[in-house]
Amino acid sequence: MTALDQLDAGGSRLETTFDDVKSAAERLRGHAVVTPLLESSALNRLTEGRILIKPESLQRTGSFKFRGAFNHMSRIPDSERRNGVVAYSSGNHAQGVAAAAQLLGIPAVIVMPSDAPAIKIENTRSYGAEVVLYDRRRESREEIGKALTSERKARLVRPYDDPDIIAGQGTCGLEIAAQAEAAGISLDNLLICCGGGGLTAGCAIAMEHLSPTTEVLTVEPSGFDDTKRSLDAGQITPNEGTTTSICDALLAPQPGELTFSVNRRLVKRGLSVTDSEVRAAMVYAFRDLKLVIEPGGAVCLAAVLSGAFDCSGRTVALTLSGGNVDPDLYCAVLASAGETAD
Amino acid sequence: MTALDQLDAGGSRLETTFDDVKSAAERLRGHAVVTPLLESSALNRLTEGRILIKPESLQRTGSFKFRGAFNHMSRIPDSERRNGVVAYSSGNHAQGVAAAAQLLGIPAVIVMPSDAPAIKIENTRSYGAEVVLYDRRRESREEIGKALTSERKARLVRPYDDPDIIAGQGTCGLEIAAQAEAAGISLDNLLICCGGGGLTAGCAIAMEHLSPTTEVLTVEPSGFDDTKRSLDAGQITPNEGTTTSICDALLAPQPGELTFSVNRRLVKRGLSVTDSEVRAAMVYAFRDLKLVIEPGGAVCLAAVLSGAFDCSGRTVALTLSGGNVDPDLYCAVLASAGETAD
Repeated sequence: MTALDQLDAGGSRLETTFDDVKSAAERLRGHAVVTPLLESSALNRLTEGRILIKPESLQRTGSFKFRGAFNHMSRIPDSERRNGVVAYSSGNHAQGVAAAAQLLGIPAVIVMPSDAPAIKIENTRSYGAEVVLYDRRRESREEIGKALTSERKARLVRPYDDPDIIAGQGTCGLEIAAQAEAAGISLDNLLICCGGGGLTAGCAIAMEHLSPTTEVLTVEPSGFDDTKRSLDAGQITPNEGTTTSICDALLAPQPGELTFSVNRRLVKRGLSVTDSEVRAAMVYAFRDLKLVIEPGGAVCLAAVLSGAFDCSGRTVALTLSGGNVDPDLYCAVLASAGETAD
Repeated sequence: MTALDQLDAGGSRLETTFDDVKSAAERLRGHAVVTPLLESSALNRLTEGRILIKPESLQRTGSFKFRGAFNHMSRIPDSERRNGVVAYSSGNHAQGVAAAAQLLGIPAVIVMPSDAPAIKIENTRSYGAEVVLYDRRRESREEIGKALTSERKARLVRPYDDPDIIAGQGTCGLEIAAQAEAAGISLDNLLICCGGGGLTAGCAIAMEHLSPTTEVLTVEPSGFDDTKRSLDAGQITPNEGTTTSICDALLAPQPGELTFSVNRRLVKRGLSVTDSEVRAAMVYAFRDLKLVIEPGGAVCLAAVLSGAFDCSGRTVALTLSGGNVDPDLYCAVLASAGETAD
């Protein structure tokens, strides 16, 4: 049964509308951080464009994922809340669900790979969620999640292929459009860090209505550029799964069905960057922007710094989608700054 | 000859007024970053208060120092500009002066200690300034600066004891007051990272006019708490100079004359924190706020996290004054996170 079928069977709406994004913003008011839209004259000079940075690393839980999780979970009827929620996630969705669950008083169990960044596992537990670790190579998180939901009659909170999750992530795009307008800035492009495509789909819906001339592009790690290749092919095209990446937050096997149905219509094209370019972007963010960015959160910055996207003469907004990175990896990346690119 | 005498002889105004701060804000418009006022629900919970964070690490050049430098230098008459400016600084004022000089087309020579953080020396050079290094233990930066100004007929840009520098730094306080008011927030306290006292004096002048019930406090490193002890004694009291601190930006030997004449009137009291508390605050900023903060920029956060300032039930704004830290030191601090406090 596909995600679409499941949602259909459950009677949920399938398509996220602009009104859904606006309603999500109402629900998130006072709970999510309205992250600033930052600008660096040094980065502008370097890229020969005008770059507006949306640091979702400064969001509650350190990534945009809180937006979608809180929006979805605040709509769970009271009668269903006591059974709790189940989520599987490599970490940022886990923290978003756990923090939303704590705020809403809903029990949460999160299925996480045992090799997820320690900071993500610790933070998820710190919000009071029960964490079930699994071996990424030998066990299926979907099966573990299925067993847990059926055993506890709990609700599964999907990481991206869900209309309320997409609407919640779309509030990030709503803010970008409003902040750019308030500053009198017209955006040529919006680059979005892309895993399953939830942030992309939500933001693309917001931009379609608020800034229709802004071209939306996805950025993914090389080897996990399933959205890019799916957009090129006009149909969902999974990753080959023969490679790895340090971008632990962006390793979705393929675009979601709901997210891709939005993104194929609203996204101009996809870009990809190498791990080496991601590391250079993390170092740049440390040194020049003074922002702590995790690998998956740095792909858009990597695209503009590496030239994968040419900003010359353009006004470009980009997301820094998260900042949850272990100090050991972070310092290894900073130490690699002087080394030759791979 | 004291700074006051020198200024008097030069015919400059000695006292910074609120109108000077407002004029500085006009001059800085479009050049300085209006840094956001951030809030973290996790930090609020931890401190049992409401904390508003002003991250001047996100300012042009990575610290608030650009504000004062640009304000001062934009007022230099055209006829004097060709002779250039001279500044001495351990790094953040250096970068502020160098960046302002580049924007205004003024030649700049900066006298820096050879053991200043490499990132600060490199950045200062990157703005096109000439850097003269000196040995902090064997040479006097004042004498080197004096020789350079007299030889080149250049103007000395003081790091803090100057009315236009104080007015420029005050724009940070102007923004804090305006941002708090726009969010409907009434501030009980404002904590300011304090070296020579320029940021403190400027912000205190702004708060006196815009938020007179807000109590302003300084935070300094232990052993360099000259403003704290001067406030207690009612007169300028230099540091003993028998200790060291990792807070390279806050090692002024004593309060400035102009800054102290403002601060003795407007600052409630001074606080101090240990290097160990500063390291813990830098780690907290990395892990939970996702902000890169240099040691001197972390003293206010250290004060609220360590309990040196009790935020319970209070609404407290604090400055994170800069983020220019070498990766080696930064990673040593992150690695020390699990160790016993000193």
